[in-house]
Amino acid sequence: MRFRLLATDGRARLGLLETPRGVIRTPAFMPVGTAATVKAMMPEAVRASGAEVLLANTYHLMLRPGAERVARLGGLHRFMGWPHPILTDSGGFQVMSLGRLATVTEAGVAFRSHLDGSRHLLTPERSIAIQRLLGADIVMAFDECTRHPATHAEAARSMRLSMRWAERSRAAFLEGGPQGAALFGIQQGALFEDLRRESAERLVAIGFEGYAIGGLAVGEGQQAMFEVLDYAPAQLPPDRPRYLMGVGKPADLIGAVLSGVDMFDCVLPTRSGRTAQAFVAGGTLNLRNARFAEDGAPLEEGCPCPTCARFSRAYLHHLFRAGEILGPMLLTTHNLWHYQQLMAGLRAAIAEGRAHAFARARLAA
Amino acid sequence: MRFRLLATDGRARLGLLETPRGVIRTPAFMPVGTAATVKAMMPEAVRASGAEVLLANTYHLMLRPGAERVARLGGLHRFMGWPHPILTDSGGFQVMSLGRLATVTEAGVAFRSHLDGSRHLLTPERSIAIQRLLGADIVMAFDECTRHPATHAEAARSMRLSMRWAERSRAAFLEGGPQGAALFGIQQGALFEDLRRESAERLVAIGFEGYAIGGLAVGEGQQAMFEVLDYAPAQLPPDRPRYLMGVGKPADLIGAVLSGVDMFDCVLPTRSGRTAQAFVAGGTLNLRNARFAEDGAPLEEGCPCPTCARFSRAYLHHLFRAGEILGPMLLTTHNLWHYQQLMAGLRAAIAEGRAHAFARARLAA
Repeated sequence: MRFRLLATDGRARLGLLETPRGVIRTPAFMPVGTAATVKAMMPEAVRASGAEVLLANTYHLMLRPGAERVARLGGLHRFMGWPHPILTDSGGFQVMSLGRLATVTEAGVAFRSHLDGSRHLLTPERSIAIQRLLGADIVMAFDECTRHPATHAEAARSMRLSMRWAERSRAAFLEGGPQGAALFGIQQGALFEDLRRESAERLVAIGFEGYAIGGLAVGEGQQAMFEVLDYAPAQLPPDRPRYLMGVGKPADLIGAVLSGVDMFDCVLPTRSGRTAQAFVAGGTLNLRNARFAEDGAPLEEGCPCPTCARFSRAYLHHLFRAGEILGPMLLTTHNLWHYQQLMAGLRAAIAEGRAHAFARARLAA
Repeated sequence: MRFRLLATDGRARLGLLETPRGVIRTPAFMPVGTAATVKAMMPEAVRASGAEVLLANTYHLMLRPGAERVARLGGLHRFMGWPHPILTDSGGFQVMSLGRLATVTEAGVAFRSHLDGSRHLLTPERSIAIQRLLGADIVMAFDECTRHPATHAEAARSMRLSMRWAERSRAAFLEGGPQGAALFGIQQGALFEDLRRESAERLVAIGFEGYAIGGLAVGEGQQAMFEVLDYAPAQLPPDRPRYLMGVGKPADLIGAVLSGVDMFDCVLPTRSGRTAQAFVAGGTLNLRNARFAEDGAPLEEGCPCPTCARFSRAYLHHLFRAGEILGPMLLTTHNLWHYQQLMAGLRAAIAEGRAHAFARARLAA
């Protein structure tokens, strides 16, 4: 994997992440395909929206259908009909979201499946093995996402555990050779600049193909997140991609790109697509609202997506009111296009040295 | 609307139904788009399966979003993004399926909405008006679908009511001019040949652009249905299309085509697509079955559909187990292709004078 920095505009970066399965233009937004499907979307429609890489979830896939099964079926790309790059998370974030069902030790995380209560142990070594079985192009180090709020002592203890796991993740990844895949380390340290710096230095000492900023978008609020993003990206190597995990709303993405972040993933456009929430310039629309019942306009004037090209707000309103599957299908399509159009707009603006003007115009809309 | 009979093979017929919105090759299968959507399908994917005409349901659309609202939004074709022909049913079958909620009088059927309990009256005149508001290319006469089982006296009373309603439907349809649409009459008479004949004669005396065979596939069983189909099509004019309503399984379609039927509609391929049932040569597969968990084969070997081209039974099994929307999307796609491939096979066989051999081979598979 090679990362080429094509242009910068302030701290914003335009890049190309070259992988054996295809090139990813950055800043990039990765739709989430939790259970080996971007919910309610045909894979070719995800690609048509502009997505060049997907995120899939280790936790969900290890439980169902199982990583070994996916491997026997030829790997995740073939299984889900997505021949382009896939990034898998480490499973750490999700097993720790299980709360009482999970126990963290130095070895890893013991947990019970939310599906059938069965016991499992996820360690750095097992997480990497699962991601290799799935066939991920970008593998994530196993880490603990520090809970919010955390004291300095709690955040330090948690971050240092993640750094020891990062070393074990790297060792497990290198065993057997890189096989064309890349491993990203994950910076932790909560909202503390000194801990973020320590984390970055330890990760760089280990050495990764890319670096993620973890532990944000966990309830700290946009202002606190932006405060961390004011220094965290610059703590990471400039010649490697930077990935802000689990973010976010369009305004979050814009702010993070201006801070030097290159990659994002979030369930928001897809989840909103299933709950009748449309992303449009300047905000969101709830399509269940009665005011759309006779609104013959498209969701968003000028939007090039297949939904806006052919269907009215009134039709989408009808589909959601009637509980029709086509409602989530059409609205997820639009939301993914909206996100990808935003990323394309940011990339063009960075290339032309007008990223801040673009951001101001978008945030004022 | 013009119907051209291109070839016959025994009683089986190959034809072209020319409408202002496009040509329909017969024998034709019409997917059902109850609430202005073929469930879980993008309209272009329905078209790509080979469908040249859809059925939409007057009962559902009059209640939600309402026929006047659809008309204000530019009609059903524009509303649902389907520029090709649409046939609407009369609503009669479905209001009578409401049972206790519906009361039949000479005027029509008074009923309460299954959605909100509101009171409505559906008459021949109102049914035709609704279908015109929707903008149907093929409008169906308002009729009573005779309940099964029915005595000769019950069937005669019911059929004669439908024939009086057929006259009122025709008068209502002609008021305001045909506007490029066609009106089909519906033969009733339950399982009684003399009543079917009387019904056919009364319909022909009124005069329709096409004729449907109603009151079958209501619990009488395939043998009883085929007995009626042994004489009923021949009671209808040979120069007009014949439409067997609500049928059916692939074997039903094959038998009915050999009996001289030209058009069909049924929810089976779409409904089965949402309940994990796949139509394949020789029967059906239940994709939830554990035996498919590691089955890397496509649903049906040699099937040209987009699902079989890219996805395995194991993937479909996973999607249904995980409750993913993509399961119904992919399986409905396959099932609609399966049905359209069957119709294409029947048309080719009729053209080449081998309809019975084709039928024998398909039924033996």
